[in-house]
Amino acid sequence: MEHKTIFKNREVLKVNGERLWSRMMEMAQIGGTPKGGVCRVTLTEEDKKGRDLFIKWCEDAGCTIEIDQMGNLFARRAGKRADLNPILMGSHLDSQPTGGKYDGVYGVLAALEVIESLNDLDIVTEAPIEIVSWTNEEGARFSPAMIGSGVFTGEFTLEYAYNQKDKEGVTLGEALDQIGYKGEFPIGERTYAASIEVHIEQGPILEAEKKSIGVVTGVQGIRWYDLKVKGKETHAGPCPMHLRKDPVKATLPILNEIYQLAEQFAPDSRATIGDIVPTPAVRNTVPSELNITVDLRHPQSEILDEMHYRLQEIISQYHNQNGIEVTLEEIWHSPPVAFAQDVIEAIQASVEDLKVPHMKMVSGAGHDSVYLSRVTPTAMIFIPCEDGLSHNELEKAEKEDVINGADVLLNTALKLAMY
Amino acid sequence: MEHKTIFKNREVLKVNGERLWSRMMEMAQIGGTPKGGVCRVTLTEEDKKGRDLFIKWCEDAGCTIEIDQMGNLFARRAGKRADLNPILMGSHLDSQPTGGKYDGVYGVLAALEVIESLNDLDIVTEAPIEIVSWTNEEGARFSPAMIGSGVFTGEFTLEYAYNQKDKEGVTLGEALDQIGYKGEFPIGERTYAASIEVHIEQGPILEAEKKSIGVVTGVQGIRWYDLKVKGKETHAGPCPMHLRKDPVKATLPILNEIYQLAEQFAPDSRATIGDIVPTPAVRNTVPSELNITVDLRHPQSEILDEMHYRLQEIISQYHNQNGIEVTLEEIWHSPPVAFAQDVIEAIQASVEDLKVPHMKMVSGAGHDSVYLSRVTPTAMIFIPCEDGLSHNELEKAEKEDVINGADVLLNTALKLAMY
Repeated sequence: MEHKTIFKNREVLKVNGERLWSRMMEMAQIGGTPKGGVCRVTLTEEDKKGRDLFIKWCEDAGCTIEIDQMGNLFARRAGKRADLNPILMGSHLDSQPTGGKYDGVYGVLAALEVIESLNDLDIVTEAPIEIVSWTNEEGARFSPAMIGSGVFTGEFTLEYAYNQKDKEGVTLGEALDQIGYKGEFPIGERTYAASIEVHIEQGPILEAEKKSIGVVTGVQGIRWYDLKVKGKETHAGPCPMHLRKDPVKATLPILNEIYQLAEQFAPDSRATIGDIVPTPAVRNTVPSELNITVDLRHPQSEILDEMHYRLQEIISQYHNQNGIEVTLEEIWHSPPVAFAQDVIEAIQASVEDLKVPHMKMVSGAGHDSVYLSRVTPTAMIFIPCEDGLSHNELEKAEKEDVINGADVLLNTALKLAMY
Repeated sequence: MEHKTIFKNREVLKVNGERLWSRMMEMAQIGGTPKGGVCRVTLTEEDKKGRDLFIKWCEDAGCTIEIDQMGNLFARRAGKRADLNPILMGSHLDSQPTGGKYDGVYGVLAALEVIESLNDLDIVTEAPIEIVSWTNEEGARFSPAMIGSGVFTGEFTLEYAYNQKDKEGVTLGEALDQIGYKGEFPIGERTYAASIEVHIEQGPILEAEKKSIGVVTGVQGIRWYDLKVKGKETHAGPCPMHLRKDPVKATLPILNEIYQLAEQFAPDSRATIGDIVPTPAVRNTVPSELNITVDLRHPQSEILDEMHYRLQEIISQYHNQNGIEVTLEEIWHSPPVAFAQDVIEAIQASVEDLKVPHMKMVSGAGHDSVYLSRVTPTAMIFIPCEDGLSHNELEKAEKEDVINGADVLLNTALKLAMY
């Protein structure tokens, strides 16, 4: 589709950047940490406060709020034609336990800013426009990540999601009830003409290339594994080293090979060991076992599959060596995603209209847009974040880039909503 | 000192093994668990029942009972000469909450069996012989472990011990009163010519070496450290591998070198990594840091010191490489203990008299004998336990080894008590 430049008073349309910035700083107070980060973990009291504030802002902007059974929040601005499917914009308001002020919340508040700017500009689109904030994108409290959009798009059942437990044994369903955000609206019964998510890059590429906007054409594939290395618990004193079945010692070469696996498929491959849990975790006891998480990523399906097979080979090579059991369970697989050409083109046309430095790129992180793209034409807009730092209290984005991203979102939404 | 073989009717002296075994099985009924273990935690009603039964057996054997202010039990069999310092034998009657039938209780009942056998054999030693059962060896209810022998030998004050609290807030002093075992006898005002403790090994060495008796020449020294490896927290997807500061990856060669350090000083050195705590411990995040415990042991002070210096060298070698900070803090140091040569020789002579398969060894675990050795010539006798398992309801020792250990104790006590 050809996308026309949208002018008003001979100017390309822009958002109110100061308002967006001040809303972001206000939201960052909720769960704000002394180091300047945010702890607004999903379905906690802090998350509830963030949701409450967001809904108030949306209502003030004239939106209609609907909350679905997963606690996903939808704020709708009517278009001229109620028969058209709306354009969806948004991301998530939850954060990592030691997260930053930009991850997720930027995409939600940029979408709100688009609607407030349309109000200011007195523009009514043909199609309605909706903002969404998805529940539990981070996966920090309840596994898996992106479960709100996952249930929405049919990846998981509602029952599965409700039964997921946090470390204290609280289920996601109970946690939704506890903060009063288990909505009535049937999950998934909403259809959209297109979906756009603006987000910080969470990587160092745009900064290194000195670009303000990334036109995101797809997302890396991800495979998650639980690795268990089982030895034998023994007292740290009496048992000689050569008689031990020490799972810590046995783990070292395995993790080394996993890092080497990533190197073999450099530069686009990723291997991350995020968590290691020894049992019983006592200073003077050789652990009986280690439970370890493994996260492998690559933008090409065939290469990610190859990494998957090689990982299994590594595991089988170490299994049953010296009395150590090594087992691997794949718990999640998100294949690489190619975003919708038409939405990419609308974003590309918008960055050209706005004349901001930009590049096409692939996302290294998973996003709700991965699931959305299965049911709706979807693409993403990235802005740089300092040093590529994310999931970190020091996460930082430049105000100029934050505003550029919202301007791109505004113009893209207008093109797609047929203004 | 030369130790002569002791014969009676041309036979090396032996205990009544069946009586010892049946006493051990009877005592194991008190606090016996369905899995075949024992829960006779210090200063509980079960412990009181165990103490009562033990005292009854000692009185039946003609011993004089004295209970000191820490509830340590002493049962004395008179010798020919009241002016000589007695020979002490014993261990502890308390158990872990899910403990076994052998740990501690074996050393006490083997000592009782020695006295009953001397009665049967109509032998009166020159020096008196005493049995001891120390209060709270396990440290499972009141911390620290070995507090009864610790106060006896001046490591802790009586006041300090009385004020130690269990999880319910009950003090050790109150608990002693509650079971009626706060004795009158002033703590520590007993002196001995020698002290011998027979105990299960709590390790796999004797079993692996197919020996029935370990002649224990000392106890390993221990150094405890906190190791911190600090990198940079980043999202598992976007950041390319070569731009990461991954503390997990950086930890692998460090732990490898720690295990190599233990190998360099094999076979007596130990290196244990009991706990690893990543932060934030999230599957899709490269951790910011890992906190790791390190436990190094060696029976020789100079070698343990050498390991200590080499560990520091390893750490400084990795510190500040590729943006990773590596720091090490020593949090505890317990120097090695060398047992008394004369007592070791008496044990060695006894195992040779008895012709049981034996070896010299060093204890990896702490025992009351560590404190005793500070004030009295001390050594220990070990017997194998199945699979090295201890502090476990499945703890198991062979009847034959149990009897061999008591035979060695009998002959050693006779040599030292100048029969």
